[in-house]
Amino acid sequence: MSDPRPLILALYEQASVGCGGAPGLWTHPADDRVGVNSLDRWRDVALTVQQAGLHALFLADVLGLYDVYEGSVDAAVREAVEAPANDPFGYVPALAEVARDLAFVVTASTTYEHPFSLSRRFGTLDHLTGGRIGWNVVTSYLESAARNFGLDGQLKHADRYGRAEEFLDVVYQLLEGSWADDAVVADKASATWARTGSVRPIDHVGTHFRVAGPSLTSPSRQRTPVLFQAGWSPRGREFGARHGEVVLLPKSDPHEIRAGLDDIRSRAAALGREAEDVRALALARIVVAPTRAAAQEKLADLQSAYRLQAQLVSYSGDSGIDISRYADDEPLSTVTNGLTSYVPKAGPGSPPLTAGDVRRRFANVDRGSDLFFVGTPGEVAVAMGEHAATAGLDGYMINPLTSPGTLADVAELLVPELVDRGLFTQGVKTGSLRSRVRLDGADRLPDSFPGSRFRRPTPSRS
Amino acid sequence: MSDPRPLILALYEQASVGCGGAPGLWTHPADDRVGVNSLDRWRDVALTVQQAGLHALFLADVLGLYDVYEGSVDAAVREAVEAPANDPFGYVPALAEVARDLAFVVTASTTYEHPFSLSRRFGTLDHLTGGRIGWNVVTSYLESAARNFGLDGQLKHADRYGRAEEFLDVVYQLLEGSWADDAVVADKASATWARTGSVRPIDHVGTHFRVAGPSLTSPSRQRTPVLFQAGWSPRGREFGARHGEVVLLPKSDPHEIRAGLDDIRSRAAALGREAEDVRALALARIVVAPTRAAAQEKLADLQSAYRLQAQLVSYSGDSGIDISRYADDEPLSTVTNGLTSYVPKAGPGSPPLTAGDVRRRFANVDRGSDLFFVGTPGEVAVAMGEHAATAGLDGYMINPLTSPGTLADVAELLVPELVDRGLFTQGVKTGSLRSRVRLDGADRLPDSFPGSRFRRPTPSRS
Repeated sequence: MSDPRPLILALYEQASVGCGGAPGLWTHPADDRVGVNSLDRWRDVALTVQQAGLHALFLADVLGLYDVYEGSVDAAVREAVEAPANDPFGYVPALAEVARDLAFVVTASTTYEHPFSLSRRFGTLDHLTGGRIGWNVVTSYLESAARNFGLDGQLKHADRYGRAEEFLDVVYQLLEGSWADDAVVADKASATWARTGSVRPIDHVGTHFRVAGPSLTSPSRQRTPVLFQAGWSPRGREFGARHGEVVLLPKSDPHEIRAGLDDIRSRAAALGREAEDVRALALARIVVAPTRAAAQEKLADLQSAYRLQAQLVSYSGDSGIDISRYADDEPLSTVTNGLTSYVPKAGPGSPPLTAGDVRRRFANVDRGSDLFFVGTPGEVAVAMGEHAATAGLDGYMINPLTSPGTLADVAELLVPELVDRGLFTQGVKTGSLRSRVRLDGADRLPDSFPGSRFRRPTPSRS
Repeated sequence: MSDPRPLILALYEQASVGCGGAPGLWTHPADDRVGVNSLDRWRDVALTVQQAGLHALFLADVLGLYDVYEGSVDAAVREAVEAPANDPFGYVPALAEVARDLAFVVTASTTYEHPFSLSRRFGTLDHLTGGRIGWNVVTSYLESAARNFGLDGQLKHADRYGRAEEFLDVVYQLLEGSWADDAVVADKASATWARTGSVRPIDHVGTHFRVAGPSLTSPSRQRTPVLFQAGWSPRGREFGARHGEVVLLPKSDPHEIRAGLDDIRSRAAALGREAEDVRALALARIVVAPTRAAAQEKLADLQSAYRLQAQLVSYSGDSGIDISRYADDEPLSTVTNGLTSYVPKAGPGSPPLTAGDVRRRFANVDRGSDLFFVGTPGEVAVAMGEHAATAGLDGYMINPLTSPGTLADVAELLVPELVDRGLFTQGVKTGSLRSRVRLDGADRLPDSFPGSRFRRPTPSRS
């Protein structure tokens, strides 16, 4: 058996006080997330992530408050469930300046952004950070977000993906296709900044967008930011197979992940991509301490700050089901909103879930089926290595329980153990984000990537 | 006669190599603007602006390349006329981290942004910078921008302003009205981040937007960013009178400015505002050197790098008239696009301008009618003080000719002279941007401001 490939690790964060993976844990005495609006806490996070050698800081996002539970935002803002929801793009340039080797993955929605604006934003960030930028492509899932952008409710699942496909094609045309590699010469003597004929409109006319172009930004180190994507439905997998450079898998069972990932990689290969060009991460929560007893104590301490109420607000928002209206013995109604994380059945053929099932499942901070590693550094390292190998995963996004608690533990206890076992590469990661996650270390998308078809041959010099 | 009030000074910049006020001057040997894509040059700019005690760094913006001249972008990218056009929002958080007292004014378009996204972006930046943020509200003017956002051409002037009015009303509802001042208590003991009933939807339904709200950001130091606005048409003046906290006047003649400003301030008073709450700046270019001879030498040196060709590309884009198609003796066609800076007549009753008139006007770096101060520090300080007093201006935005040349001269030569004459307050400016530009030093909009009507009384504590 060959040596394991070192894992890719990122920290999952969000510009909110309370995040989905840690319901209520902002109330823990040692947690500092109430400082969301100040960079003070974020500087420490960024520097620690960089110093620990993690590959990136990932910023999740939502575009509406959680208002399904009890039919208002009150519970969500009281419990700080994904609230507030500050703009992640406000943080990234500042933190990239603080931690000058750290890479960032920023969530942005193809449903509520415009591809011309967003490609400029990413092109600019890619320049300013020297290529340390990834984009978590989402189609968004909250009804409340739809109502903030002029819709009565969400676009249908298929329409969201149809728009997303065209959105990406516009981004490729702008960032990969509208400026030649050698367009910018910046020659003062001949007063030539960019060469004639090297910058051309895209004149895109599609179903959702009409965009003339060219891009307002010149080619950056990566051109297109590294594309992250999460999707488990057949449509989501097809999208990931086409556009995902790093896919995020919302599951814990390694065999289930392996099956889904095989499907995504097969679809990618059918599109002409190298299967290995699709890297895959799962979202993991980790409790690690020097001894097994200390880990259990830490878990109990976290449990003391855990709030089922916050979790139920989160569940209601994610699923669209207002669980506050159901008694424990009532089965939950079926809601179809394209999500796969929460379904009102435990599985195919199972009886409908009752509200009591959900409340019991979420009674504790480990939330039953989540990917949750608890133990000594050695135990967690072994478990992660085995899980990744079985699942075919390339690594994990670590979803912190408390902040700075989880990150500090990962940096001090887990990373050294992973390094010792050959499961992680020691030291600050440098270079473009794409070079960190691709096996060939390239800065740019490979020619086999579907979006690369929008590249143009470089015109002959005039 | 009372002592003059100290001037407000800001540096006018743009995330481009070539800017409208300095056509071709990026080719000057001492200019560093070809480094637009790296923060290296920008860090120096930000620190110098801060250290010189200027009130803000202003970032202009465009959302399309200049493509009127010769009917393509070729001349604009060759001459770097407002090209590239990187996203100013990518720079501000990084520079706010470098220069921790510097304030920023960022240009954003009500025609091509969405008020829900933009209010979140500003709310986040206002938090992260402690209130050092202003918004230059523009309705945009380039046909090329319209074509990047799905339109065949620009909205009509009146429609752009209609959308802008509603846009601002949505922003006020979100940032001033949807969260009570005392909403956030962040009390871990009671697991209460924000109080019940303190965060409410806005449920805006208008002509251009439907936005449910509430804001995703909690109240920041300023809530609404300081509103900058430039407009000279009657409709533009009315908009400035209603929404402008700092109006930018695109004229040079002090009597003409005075008349326009009196009109704007009268309109503001008619809306219930204090006339003095409308501060006014003009855009000035400055050549200053220790002696009169040295200033003339500097002017000649700048002239040697000035490019009429770049100016004509800029003129064509701004006016919509492709001057490359006109011989010197041909009168220019009339173009109506809502701009006031460039008209095909010199004035009411004048004969139509010919292409030759325009080429002659722009033959030199001083461009005829611009507000252009040249001389020793004493001469320029006196001229600025007199001009401001005559025009009723509160200060200037300094449009650099070369970078870092102009800024260095202002910091080293002009600012000390202005301070000596009581025309400028020495030292780094601190506090919120609003407190720097308002006479009463307040962080928040005054109650007399029309947008303040969207505020809600704080609910009684539950």
